[in-house]
Amino acid sequence: MSASDEPTDRPASGAEPTSRFAREVPEGDDHLRLVCRDCGFINYENPKVVVGSVAAWEDKILLCRRAIEPRKGFWTLPAGFLELNEDAATGALREAWEEARARLEIDQLLAVYSIPRISQIQLIYRARLITPEVAAGPETQELDLFEWDAIPWDLLAFPSVHWALADYRAVRDLAVFAPRGNPPGEDGGLSHP
Amino acid sequence: MSASDEPTDRPASGAEPTSRFAREVPEGDDHLRLVCRDCGFINYENPKVVVGSVAAWEDKILLCRRAIEPRKGFWTLPAGFLELNEDAATGALREAWEEARARLEIDQLLAVYSIPRISQIQLIYRARLITPEVAAGPETQELDLFEWDAIPWDLLAFPSVHWALADYRAVRDLAVFAPRGNPPGEDGGLSHP
Repeated sequence: MSASDEPTDRPASGAEPTSRFAREVPEGDDHLRLVCRDCGFINYENPKVVVGSVAAWEDKILLCRRAIEPRKGFWTLPAGFLELNEDAATGALREAWEEARARLEIDQLLAVYSIPRISQIQLIYRARLITPEVAAGPETQELDLFEWDAIPWDLLAFPSVHWALADYRAVRDLAVFAPRGNPPGEDGGLSHP
Repeated sequence: MSASDEPTDRPASGAEPTSRFAREVPEGDDHLRLVCRDCGFINYENPKVVVGSVAAWEDKILLCRRAIEPRKGFWTLPAGFLELNEDAATGALREAWEEARARLEIDQLLAVYSIPRISQIQLIYRARLITPEVAAGPETQELDLFEWDAIPWDLLAFPSVHWALADYRAVRDLAVFAPRGNPPGEDGGLSHP
């Protein structure tokens, strides 16, 4: 994922400015917000949405080796931040194209993960590759279609990649299922497996 | 919903600043971002997550009449913007408390709606009220538990309130279902019903 479970090169709202912004509670609000002391601009910070897919060709799952930090060199699912004015499924398709030149057909929502520590909501879809032709995009070092037993389990980039693969496996025989969530007790911190 | 399908009193990232910020594509990026010309602060703008519930006590559904713009005086579900460091289900429970002093038990994810025009992703849960005691919070004029036929259909605040109620009805006999999405062809614009 270009979006990550780690503090990232694309923080929740950019690096926090040092001078003109102060944290205050605007009138009628009940949360601290970043407010510009000069112009009154209120920078509402909210969680970011990550959209991605567990995408398969036959029994093989598409994974990408990250060419960028964080977790450069580790393997991840095609996923990234939803952009403004984009619907969620379209964002997942875009990320698969950007990172893996993959064309997908989305089946259904596999999982919704919350990673409160870094204020991320991840929407991960179950998808099929329309063709097995894939190629590394600029944020990907290399990529491959992996049989289940060949997945580089020790080199996965983030806990949520583990979760999504396990959830994909858990529902593989189900045509209809409720989307999965975080494993019990897990919040996406890297101290977890 | 305190979050809305209309341009809102809480815009995607506050009012756009007029002077120091410019829209440019940062190095290594491929989208225009708001960048401060003085300090280099990059204000990444991404869609906001709205979390809410269709919450029922027996056969009655909780609706709240909005005390705030937009759509003041119209009826909505308890819902609002997910806050930083909050997981999605917790946010939905918080909104039900803030707007309706309602205590809920979440059943499962009812729907994921994308409203690209205003860059919103709505996660709406199917939920049960733990007790029928509810009371208006500060953003609510009044509230009630409605039998299906008594729902004020002509006075609903947003298209997605219609969608969520219809989706709730559609899955009412299903213990397990895939979350629903936008009705085909609908993007949440208020020109739709």
